[in-house]
Amino acid sequence: MLTTIRSREQEFLQYIREMMHYQEVLHLLFWDVRTGAPKKGLGLRADVIGTMSTKKFAMSISAEMKTYVEELSQAEYYQQLSPITRKVLEHAKKEYDLLIKIPEKEFASYEVAKANASAAWEEAKHASDYSIFQPHLEKLVETNKRFIDYWGYRENPYNALLDQYDPGMTVVRLDEVFTKVKAKLIPLLHRTQEAKSKPDTTFLGAAFPVEKQKDFHHFLLRELGYDFGAGRLDETIHPFAVPLNRKDVRITTKFNESYFAGGLFATIHEYGHALYELNIADELIGTSLCTGTSTGFHESQSLLWEKMIGRSKPFWKQYYPTLSTYNQEQFHGVGLDDFYRAVNSVSPSFIRIEADELTYPLHVILRYEIEKGIFANEIEVRDLPEIWNQKMQEYLGIVPPDDRRGVLQDMHWSAGMFGYFPSYALGYLFAAQIRNTMRKEIKEIDQLVEEAKFTPIKQWLAENIHVHGKMKDPDQLLLEVTGEPLNSDHLLSYLEEKYSDIYKLDK
Amino acid sequence: MLTTIRSREQEFLQYIREMMHYQEVLHLLFWDVRTGAPKKGLGLRADVIGTMSTKKFAMSISAEMKTYVEELSQAEYYQQLSPITRKVLEHAKKEYDLLIKIPEKEFASYEVAKANASAAWEEAKHASDYSIFQPHLEKLVETNKRFIDYWGYRENPYNALLDQYDPGMTVVRLDEVFTKVKAKLIPLLHRTQEAKSKPDTTFLGAAFPVEKQKDFHHFLLRELGYDFGAGRLDETIHPFAVPLNRKDVRITTKFNESYFAGGLFATIHEYGHALYELNIADELIGTSLCTGTSTGFHESQSLLWEKMIGRSKPFWKQYYPTLSTYNQEQFHGVGLDDFYRAVNSVSPSFIRIEADELTYPLHVILRYEIEKGIFANEIEVRDLPEIWNQKMQEYLGIVPPDDRRGVLQDMHWSAGMFGYFPSYALGYLFAAQIRNTMRKEIKEIDQLVEEAKFTPIKQWLAENIHVHGKMKDPDQLLLEVTGEPLNSDHLLSYLEEKYSDIYKLDK
Repeated sequence: MLTTIRSREQEFLQYIREMMHYQEVLHLLFWDVRTGAPKKGLGLRADVIGTMSTKKFAMSISAEMKTYVEELSQAEYYQQLSPITRKVLEHAKKEYDLLIKIPEKEFASYEVAKANASAAWEEAKHASDYSIFQPHLEKLVETNKRFIDYWGYRENPYNALLDQYDPGMTVVRLDEVFTKVKAKLIPLLHRTQEAKSKPDTTFLGAAFPVEKQKDFHHFLLRELGYDFGAGRLDETIHPFAVPLNRKDVRITTKFNESYFAGGLFATIHEYGHALYELNIADELIGTSLCTGTSTGFHESQSLLWEKMIGRSKPFWKQYYPTLSTYNQEQFHGVGLDDFYRAVNSVSPSFIRIEADELTYPLHVILRYEIEKGIFANEIEVRDLPEIWNQKMQEYLGIVPPDDRRGVLQDMHWSAGMFGYFPSYALGYLFAAQIRNTMRKEIKEIDQLVEEAKFTPIKQWLAENIHVHGKMKDPDQLLLEVTGEPLNSDHLLSYLEEKYSDIYKLDK
Repeated sequence: MLTTIRSREQEFLQYIREMMHYQEVLHLLFWDVRTGAPKKGLGLRADVIGTMSTKKFAMSISAEMKTYVEELSQAEYYQQLSPITRKVLEHAKKEYDLLIKIPEKEFASYEVAKANASAAWEEAKHASDYSIFQPHLEKLVETNKRFIDYWGYRENPYNALLDQYDPGMTVVRLDEVFTKVKAKLIPLLHRTQEAKSKPDTTFLGAAFPVEKQKDFHHFLLRELGYDFGAGRLDETIHPFAVPLNRKDVRITTKFNESYFAGGLFATIHEYGHALYELNIADELIGTSLCTGTSTGFHESQSLLWEKMIGRSKPFWKQYYPTLSTYNQEQFHGVGLDDFYRAVNSVSPSFIRIEADELTYPLHVILRYEIEKGIFANEIEVRDLPEIWNQKMQEYLGIVPPDDRRGVLQDMHWSAGMFGYFPSYALGYLFAAQIRNTMRKEIKEIDQLVEEAKFTPIKQWLAENIHVHGKMKDPDQLLLEVTGEPLNSDHLLSYLEEKYSDIYKLDK
């Protein structure tokens, strides 16, 4: 009997490993399309991506998968499984259940609806005409509501969606933290706007030759210890990190001659994502657990590096002198403090992905509230532009001049990604909470950063967070690492302290 | 009935299309590994390549494939199929038969034997010790002999192998042409060696900055009309062309600061391969016919561009003045004629892939004769080093100082690729024969090349050769294009004329 179980367990793990091989292929296809696949081949390439996605999808709901899930879940089998296999099984079962509950026909027509919605969204955004997108969005929303009925949910239908990105996250918990965040950030934003001493950002727009920027990015990545034997840096329109496998995690960035800061912080951000994937335990290689535990946790690791280390004063004490040698004229007469303040300047803006650290969470909360309202049947899709603009006025004090820079700016809804946005804000909350613990446990952390000694920080993150991959759920991980559940105080006091300093606000 | 046939035909074509999607994935994985995939991830990547190869392989011998082949081959079905489907079916059936005749167990152990042989060959080559490789090569040869028995063959067992690379090619035909080639080239080589006026090649070794070389390669590819919207140029150790799909055919080259010519002609060579794939008829997209008709024919297209256009005097009349501006010092005092002679200089050398146009076919014939002898049971694997060196002495007048630069230089045998080498020489023969016809049909072709007017040449090649893909077999295609079967006279007179001029030989 034990032999049978062991061999079934191995067969199951091999089956999962093959699914992960499809995933590596899909990630490579994704990377290739964005980093320079010839344009004319993309139409035919799309069919290849379709075939590979379909194959992977078919494996997650196959009769074979059903047998594994049912068989290995039986008590006499389950008790014999290794802890890793149990967790892999749990994930496989969860995915299987999500997919199998939806009638095949509805699933297929949803895929078509998403494709149509994406095309309509592109057109609508280009024309800045919400009415082109609206019927498509309505259809996707209706379909998701029906899916939620098939799946079932606890307390709130929207929870079923949240759970797919940050397992365990609920409306009740988000409402609690986001209310506090709004209550603190909106007044703090006003105080920065009214501050007398504002950062001078004009020098940021000076020309910085792209080749020089590239050199500096490479220099910085080597300083941070990004392993070019297990990754590479390429250029794309939207920067990203993509894990091909546990020893091949690639990042991309962008280069704008007249705004070097955008690409520079994007590189550090993506480095944070990559570091997470590169530090996962060897024993999880080839399993579905070999990735970050949730969307929000992943974002916490990129934000920790980009915002909390990469935009900190100790960091630039070390690197500003070097940076200035890469483009001397631009930084002539700009002191360290001027530089530090400029790259942390705050300004309400229309576009989420261009927002600063202080206004960014407000962009996300706006989207969260809209999604929550939609799935509680309290908001109609046709009213989104109006609601969007009202909330922009309320939270950021500005109203987008058109829907292109408003409700139509993000691709998420057109791809059916409802419940994703909150993860971006959770990233900030997790990051600040983790930072708080890290500062207690690593002595003189600012000194270490100032001396470019990142090893203790990287080791701490690896041992406490990265190594676990998906073996620990986000809730459990956050509790184990920080000793408390989600707590917005850490983000709020971090922001209060940092921006009071930068804007020289009265305490 | 007709509806059933049409729908079965469409299902079959869809099945083939999926196989081609796996092929695109495999080609992308290949390209990625060579152009810059992070080294540390390659171990895990190998498993992904293994899974994808296995999936594609499984599709070619599946029960589903068997049903398609059997069903569609029946007369009442077959008569209703489109000409394209018939040809696709023919290829699928041929592959199915080749694979299915080999007992599954033997196939699996052959895969292991090849993997072991490859590793042993690497080690043997590094140590320049044939004895490390010999037992592995013996095993691969024995296995292939057994496979040939399973497959059956006409006239000569070796024909079964030749047919897999250049369908229809036989020992009788190769013996005939290769005997003539040897009889002509060996004395011609001697005459160049005894010539009083030899090209001065010293300037070729001067430093040519790599960035400048890259710029010139890009310039030249644009001149030739390589479509960067449907391809790209990257750098690899060994240059290659790889079709991802019909509208995405990528090439690679190499850059050596102290030998620009190697990379330059590699780029033109790979351009020739890419042009073939990019010109195949739209209606063959997604079928197994959407590639060159044979290994030898593919090589003919690369050689035509590299050797017969790219190393011709009219070509450099146009481009030498431009080339010299990219690295003025190097070409100072070197006239057009000096340049033309230098890049066509002849010299017997040990390594096939570094050989010139005149000695290259002799390298291939040597390998052909060895393979032929092995499969006729006239040559023992243990005697290869000795036979190799004897033939090198006889054909090229030089003997490799060690097996690394002799019998161990190529990877083909370690990968079980017996019957492949002749295609390289066939490439020369096809190219010269095609060139002969093209020169008759395109008026003032030298003038066109000299004026950088490549369109008529490209159009002629596209219409007569490229567009057909695998719809026409190589024999048929050669006959239709040139009006005669394989004829070595064209290569021999081309070489005689060209090298008599370059070495100022008495006619």
